[in-house]
Amino acid sequence: MSSPIPPTAPDYIAARRASLALVLERITAERGLALEAQLPGGRELMKRVLEYALRGKMLRGALVHLGAELFDAATARGIDETAAAMELFQAGLLVHDDIMDRDELRRGAPSFHSLYARETKDEGAEDAVHLGESLGICAGDVCLFEGFAALAAAVAGAGHGGATLLALCAEELSVVGLAQMRDCRWAALPVEPGEEEILAMYRGKTARYSFSLPLAAGALLAGRADLRPALFEIGELAGLAFQVRDDELGLYGDASRTGKSVVSDIREGKKTLYRARLMARVAEPDRRRLAGIYGSPAAGEAEAAFVRALLETSGVRAEIAAWRDGLALRAKTLAASMRGADPERVAILADLIDYLVARQS
Amino acid sequence: MSSPIPPTAPDYIAARRASLALVLERITAERGLALEAQLPGGRELMKRVLEYALRGKMLRGALVHLGAELFDAATARGIDETAAAMELFQAGLLVHDDIMDRDELRRGAPSFHSLYARETKDEGAEDAVHLGESLGICAGDVCLFEGFAALAAAVAGAGHGGATLLALCAEELSVVGLAQMRDCRWAALPVEPGEEEILAMYRGKTARYSFSLPLAAGALLAGRADLRPALFEIGELAGLAFQVRDDELGLYGDASRTGKSVVSDIREGKKTLYRARLMARVAEPDRRRLAGIYGSPAAGEAEAAFVRALLETSGVRAEIAAWRDGLALRAKTLAASMRGADPERVAILADLIDYLVARQS
Repeated sequence: MSSPIPPTAPDYIAARRASLALVLERITAERGLALEAQLPGGRELMKRVLEYALRGKMLRGALVHLGAELFDAATARGIDETAAAMELFQAGLLVHDDIMDRDELRRGAPSFHSLYARETKDEGAEDAVHLGESLGICAGDVCLFEGFAALAAAVAGAGHGGATLLALCAEELSVVGLAQMRDCRWAALPVEPGEEEILAMYRGKTARYSFSLPLAAGALLAGRADLRPALFEIGELAGLAFQVRDDELGLYGDASRTGKSVVSDIREGKKTLYRARLMARVAEPDRRRLAGIYGSPAAGEAEAAFVRALLETSGVRAEIAAWRDGLALRAKTLAASMRGADPERVAILADLIDYLVARQS
Repeated sequence: MSSPIPPTAPDYIAARRASLALVLERITAERGLALEAQLPGGRELMKRVLEYALRGKMLRGALVHLGAELFDAATARGIDETAAAMELFQAGLLVHDDIMDRDELRRGAPSFHSLYARETKDEGAEDAVHLGESLGICAGDVCLFEGFAALAAAVAGAGHGGATLLALCAEELSVVGLAQMRDCRWAALPVEPGEEEILAMYRGKTARYSFSLPLAAGALLAGRADLRPALFEIGELAGLAFQVRDDELGLYGDASRTGKSVVSDIREGKKTLYRARLMARVAEPDRRRLAGIYGSPAAGEAEAAFVRALLETSGVRAEIAAWRDGLALRAKTLAASMRGADPERVAILADLIDYLVARQS
């Protein structure tokens, strides 16, 4: 039953991304027409949603396929639609995120709300910033609804598992919303969350949603709902490792590759694992200086270099890297121990975990 | 099979509202615990969602029940969950709406985002207004996701109709988002939409979503998916009449009963049917004065009285009232012609339409 699959994770994601792009094109075209029949603007909106979705890595959509292929891809129906739903959910969450973070750019193009603000300013809006945000909230909502609409096609094909698939997605998305609330609060309030709290937030905002959910959804469609706990655990481990690598790239990454300055997390005072451990580790004069740097709009390259130097001398960077690699190893070990899984696909998953943990962007 | 049903629409809604409150209490308690197991704050958030939902009229939830009872309530499963889902969707949309409209109050209490802003200001947030909005966006998203989570229980019980139910809800919610975008644009931009455009927006934002969708969802659960077109038409007619009554109350209502000043729509320059027809009808000096009044923050009681007087003398108010009553009559006639519908329930639906069109608040 196996079709030839690309042997390495980046090739695998690229191949899935190409086929998923076609699915998204079809779905957004159909839905754009249906919406346009109700109200002008429907086609235009879905065109923007498609362009936005196509600029993403489509990691989550690829993981739905991989989750199904681990077991029995041939009999699984609704995979394309479920993968598309994941990308539409992600689009909706990002559109809302960008409003919260006041990000003008996303995926190398203007964010939804900032584009609306620019356009409506030209059309004569007095408070175009607010109007842009309002339109962005609505457009994000539409992306989320369209995710569920896409999921309906999968629910139809999944028989008894359909309702389980819907509950899985809806409930995990709620966790993301709750985790995002924590993240917003922490960024804006003078609080110092502990490491366990930070990891719980990472688990809710990134790990379960981006890894556990798509893998478990794919397996569910392949008739392996029983593997949900195992895939959730694998996803949580891999996802935490992924998020910690993200934090590291925010400190040490090459801005030309990550698209993100190594000062911005520090300037925004993001409550990362690195920050929490460093603040707990260093002695008084350094601690006081760190407290003045984190969250300061004036923090620049020199301050970022100071933070990085402390992370090195204190051993925090090395510790976290070792811990992260341990998470990835546990995820791979668990994946290898899943009964009935296709070894070729397990190898892809393992390679994917290694790739994501070592990625440069 | 019929249980005793209250004979008039207000009694019917009140009875359904009381039982739906219990369902929402159960669902939000269960989900609050499940969320809390992932992250702190889950229980607290779901408690707020419940309080918010309980303050609503629960018209949409009641209509799900009525839609099922029109046909065969005894065999319909998942009605409670679908009704609860409608109220959770409505909560999410209102939470987002309040951010767009900058409303501090909703349902007689602080709106979600304004309460968050107030609380986080006390906790030390520098930009508490923005943080409140961010938390409101997330909380609204969670309400929407919880609506779909509640729907999953209904999808599980609805067999083959489950996917149809999900598609119905998701697709109609997308239309609401699109219609809301039009509404936001019109309120902020110097445009004069025509009557047909306004009615299409009303249909998308209010009529289909608040009337057609819950009625059709209820009928679907009762095994009458075939009546979707008829119920959509009834819902569109009744919903347009409802929305036009809403506009009228915004001009002529008793603020102590509606909770809304009769100046606010004028001051905000809302592009209502009344405004469009009046602007098209009156002669030049009055038209110019109207153009200066609509959207002016300085508009007060005297300006509102001028608008009302013109609506009377031009005949616009009477015309629209007659047209609206005609819509209601067509909706009732269509309802009475539905084959296989229980006459007692059809009478309740007719009474409900009369009640909503004549309501004072």
